[in-house]
Amino acid sequence: MPIRLSSLFLRTLREDPADAEVDSHRLLVRAGYIRKNAPGIFTWLPLGLMVKAKIEKIVREEMANAGAQEVFFPALLPREPYEATGRWEEYGDNLFRLQDRKKADYLLAPTHEEVFTLLVKDLYTSYKDLPLCIYQIQNKYRDEARPRAGLLRGREFVMKDAYSFDVSDEGLAASYQAQRDAYERIFQRLGVEYAVVKADAGAMGGSKSEEFLNPSEIGEDTFVRSPGGFAANVEAVRFAVAADVDGSKNPAAETHPSPNTPTIATLVDYSNQAHPRASGPWSAADTLKNVVLALTSPEGKRELVVVGVPGDREVDQKRAEAWFGPNEVEAATEADFAKFPQLVKGYIGPVQAGAQFLGEKAASGIRYLLDPRIARGSAWITGANVDQHHVWNLTYGRDFEADGIADIAEIRAGDPAPDGSGPLELARGIEIGHVFQLGRKYAEALDLKVLDENGKLVTVTMGSYGIGVTRLVAVIAEANNDTNGLIWPEAVAPADVHIIAAGKDEEPFLAAEKLAAEAEALGLSAMLDDRQKVSPGVKFADAELIGVPWIIICGRGVADGEVELWNRRSGERVQVKLESAVAQLMAARS
Amino acid sequence: MPIRLSSLFLRTLREDPADAEVDSHRLLVRAGYIRKNAPGIFTWLPLGLMVKAKIEKIVREEMANAGAQEVFFPALLPREPYEATGRWEEYGDNLFRLQDRKKADYLLAPTHEEVFTLLVKDLYTSYKDLPLCIYQIQNKYRDEARPRAGLLRGREFVMKDAYSFDVSDEGLAASYQAQRDAYERIFQRLGVEYAVVKADAGAMGGSKSEEFLNPSEIGEDTFVRSPGGFAANVEAVRFAVAADVDGSKNPAAETHPSPNTPTIATLVDYSNQAHPRASGPWSAADTLKNVVLALTSPEGKRELVVVGVPGDREVDQKRAEAWFGPNEVEAATEADFAKFPQLVKGYIGPVQAGAQFLGEKAASGIRYLLDPRIARGSAWITGANVDQHHVWNLTYGRDFEADGIADIAEIRAGDPAPDGSGPLELARGIEIGHVFQLGRKYAEALDLKVLDENGKLVTVTMGSYGIGVTRLVAVIAEANNDTNGLIWPEAVAPADVHIIAAGKDEEPFLAAEKLAAEAEALGLSAMLDDRQKVSPGVKFADAELIGVPWIIICGRGVADGEVELWNRRSGERVQVKLESAVAQLMAARS
Repeated sequence: MPIRLSSLFLRTLREDPADAEVDSHRLLVRAGYIRKNAPGIFTWLPLGLMVKAKIEKIVREEMANAGAQEVFFPALLPREPYEATGRWEEYGDNLFRLQDRKKADYLLAPTHEEVFTLLVKDLYTSYKDLPLCIYQIQNKYRDEARPRAGLLRGREFVMKDAYSFDVSDEGLAASYQAQRDAYERIFQRLGVEYAVVKADAGAMGGSKSEEFLNPSEIGEDTFVRSPGGFAANVEAVRFAVAADVDGSKNPAAETHPSPNTPTIATLVDYSNQAHPRASGPWSAADTLKNVVLALTSPEGKRELVVVGVPGDREVDQKRAEAWFGPNEVEAATEADFAKFPQLVKGYIGPVQAGAQFLGEKAASGIRYLLDPRIARGSAWITGANVDQHHVWNLTYGRDFEADGIADIAEIRAGDPAPDGSGPLELARGIEIGHVFQLGRKYAEALDLKVLDENGKLVTVTMGSYGIGVTRLVAVIAEANNDTNGLIWPEAVAPADVHIIAAGKDEEPFLAAEKLAAEAEALGLSAMLDDRQKVSPGVKFADAELIGVPWIIICGRGVADGEVELWNRRSGERVQVKLESAVAQLMAARS
Repeated sequence: MPIRLSSLFLRTLREDPADAEVDSHRLLVRAGYIRKNAPGIFTWLPLGLMVKAKIEKIVREEMANAGAQEVFFPALLPREPYEATGRWEEYGDNLFRLQDRKKADYLLAPTHEEVFTLLVKDLYTSYKDLPLCIYQIQNKYRDEARPRAGLLRGREFVMKDAYSFDVSDEGLAASYQAQRDAYERIFQRLGVEYAVVKADAGAMGGSKSEEFLNPSEIGEDTFVRSPGGFAANVEAVRFAVAADVDGSKNPAAETHPSPNTPTIATLVDYSNQAHPRASGPWSAADTLKNVVLALTSPEGKRELVVVGVPGDREVDQKRAEAWFGPNEVEAATEADFAKFPQLVKGYIGPVQAGAQFLGEKAASGIRYLLDPRIARGSAWITGANVDQHHVWNLTYGRDFEADGIADIAEIRAGDPAPDGSGPLELARGIEIGHVFQLGRKYAEALDLKVLDENGKLVTVTMGSYGIGVTRLVAVIAEANNDTNGLIWPEAVAPADVHIIAAGKDEEPFLAAEKLAAEAEALGLSAMLDDRQKVSPGVKFADAELIGVPWIIICGRGVADGEVELWNRRSGERVQVKLESAVAQLMAARS
């Protein structure tokens, strides 16, 4: 049966919703696909549900092709399993927590590793039962601090989450690859552009992880790519420690007054004025900036660290969070500085900051970490730990040591890829999928063991694999629209063809009915604009807004046996014979 | 592709789970359909999900036939709309409430009248947009005091909830009928026995409501039926007030001591001893029992009422809750009695209990309500409001009045139906569907109005219609099993045929594969027990437990071209030719 606009629960809007920041949100609301109930919480109207169902169908088919079996977990879960893995705390404010009438703690699950693990533990006992991959398509909950951009960052959203269980690392690698391949097929079928990038495993734990990012200016993720094929989320990029340089000819370190130079720019200017260098002017890259960060552990313990980075680079907050996770990271506050008077703001140097000085541990107890670019043997202008003073030619390995590295400086276009595959370019993307080799973290925490071939208990190794189903609706809408509305790819459009009966005469309505019936008989789904007393202009505008890829207009030409076949994407409109219209449509479809 | 038991995520159990009270729970767990996560909260394993999906498909088809359109609401909703209708409070402890990180109040929706109403208000403005019926199949949440019987009373469960919107009462009646008809078709297709009974609208409000009950000994609902076609949930039965009787010849009321007679039984014994009656012995039916109930309003206000019922009947708690709803009802406590010393426990009579005495209002302020069976003019033995004293021949209308009726006494088999259609029989049932004419309650609370034909704003009238999808899985399992396991009706079975390869030889496995391929080619879904090193006995037991309606055994007979076709329900097993087995199965299916 065609979808009749005369009765479809739909109201298109001519105005953009006030709170819409991005095209997909704006157009999905205007075209009657979704409505907001609360920040990050949406209702799916009939058209939206049709698109969502098509995506789910493709996901299900490819999960079946990958040998994954569907199950369905509750969204409301007891605290205990998440307590056992530490995630009840780790999730912080992002977790919706509640109590039942007996004051027992529950949560709305943001992801289901724990209970999948327990389920397999409940059912399976032997290596013969594995490998296993099970998945669900289900509502997830995250209490985002800033739900935004419509469906792109919601608080209630639909995910496909799959979990694999293997005895061996090789088994895990194969299960991971099977899901990764399925993801590629899914995104290809959906016509969604994607980059697979190395990712930081973050709160999930585990050893290897990749993200599927849809390149987009509005993405919240930044990733890098090199001509030689390196691709990673910036959080996951790890640079090698620079090779030692010969510092034996470095001049001795000298401390000088440096009045009013609390910033790198003022310091560089002052250096070039007061201590010019023969080989050319000093630049920010010659300075060592010492940044004080406060780390807060999930248990609430606060620790200061000082990180030395080349003065021409900033610390990247997301890279810092990934490096120091699960700790939270922020710049040290005035209160932090007040506790450590040896940290002289604007003039901090590695020595007093906690670094080893000629083998001697400084008294502050604060760890001093270095950017991997700082080569042993290189000399720097840096703070002298005395107000309005800096030190010149302070040489790493000769004048100071560090407690370790911290690879948290910003990445810039042109930086060399860590694997030597050429200069990096930066791009933004929306995370649409994420695959993790979790390893044995969850199985250990929840004691999931099976008997191996020798009758010995071994801990199972796991993977987890997520696709944001509702987010994909937005991603597709974001990449497929113009000023007049949405333009769905054929694979997910709410209908295959949108047939408009235009005008007041009966003939176009009869022709439209006939074409809809014909199309449906051939297995196409038809949307039929059979509304009476609605002007052709409004019908055309609604068709463009709704975004079915093919439109047929039955208008005055019907009297001469002609209708118009309209390609929504190209805008091309051609006159075709009424009797061959559906055949031509079939031929034109990709 | 057949469902292969060699890889299916399944473990059948030989033992019943310790907490299972009913067959469906016991067998659905043992046969690997569901697993419990927390009280009333379950995970759906692959087999369970298949059955659930089949039910959902039938529900969707019949909703489409009834002209209802599918949408999908969040489960997590803000407090405000439920505050506007009073249900934020009314739901009491049954509502899961939580706060987000900004301390805003949210709930997990137990049902969605409010937000459906608001959605229609958002989209529609004119009578021309109506009638409209929209529905969803979605997770619901109720924090039941006693989650029990597996899926029968869960705390997270799946419901199909539909809502209709009309301008006129006639429109509502038609929308209601369309859903009611769809429900009958759904239950018929599912092979679920049902009775449609008049129901109490309860917390939903509204004017007319009917329940679909599946007759079952384990049901929590009690309903009555008469030979003449009357059918109602006991909560919804309303008896007419008894016609006046001639009390003019009643002896005068006399108060006498009645030592140690605080119960009806002791009072009847004492009466026959001390005050025998010429016309025959006194019985409990001659006494008027005055029950003190405490009502608590949703706002927490507590009020005592005294209800007079014939001494041979108890108060029915559910009928009392329905009658006095949305108040909660409990027996008055010692603390309540302490506040009203005029209520002499065991000896309470209508006069001091708050009833009017010869036109004079009693001082307590407590309302006195009477069972509708108490006829004006009838005489009673009842309490004298003095310790160890009763009064004989106290006549209603002569000696006391009441403030109203309370139709809350238990119903007994043989009681006359209120509509005169004969004696009532009582039965128990499980609520599987509920249809409500809500009327304008929600539209008024949330201001849902549309313009009528004359351009005048009119309030919309609504209906709501629910089916417990996950509960239906249990109801069907409950009605379709034997000592060996489940026996699914063909419409919802996880597969159409269960093909067993028995023994160690290769031939039965090859034959089973061939039959599975044949069956699938003909559009049947096959489950294939292709497990190696599993004994035929275990395979047969699993097949019976899992409950696919038809089983084909490929065993030693395969060498002679023969297999066994087994009807799971009748137990009949016949030898059939291998090459015609699938054809015979097709012919045998209903």
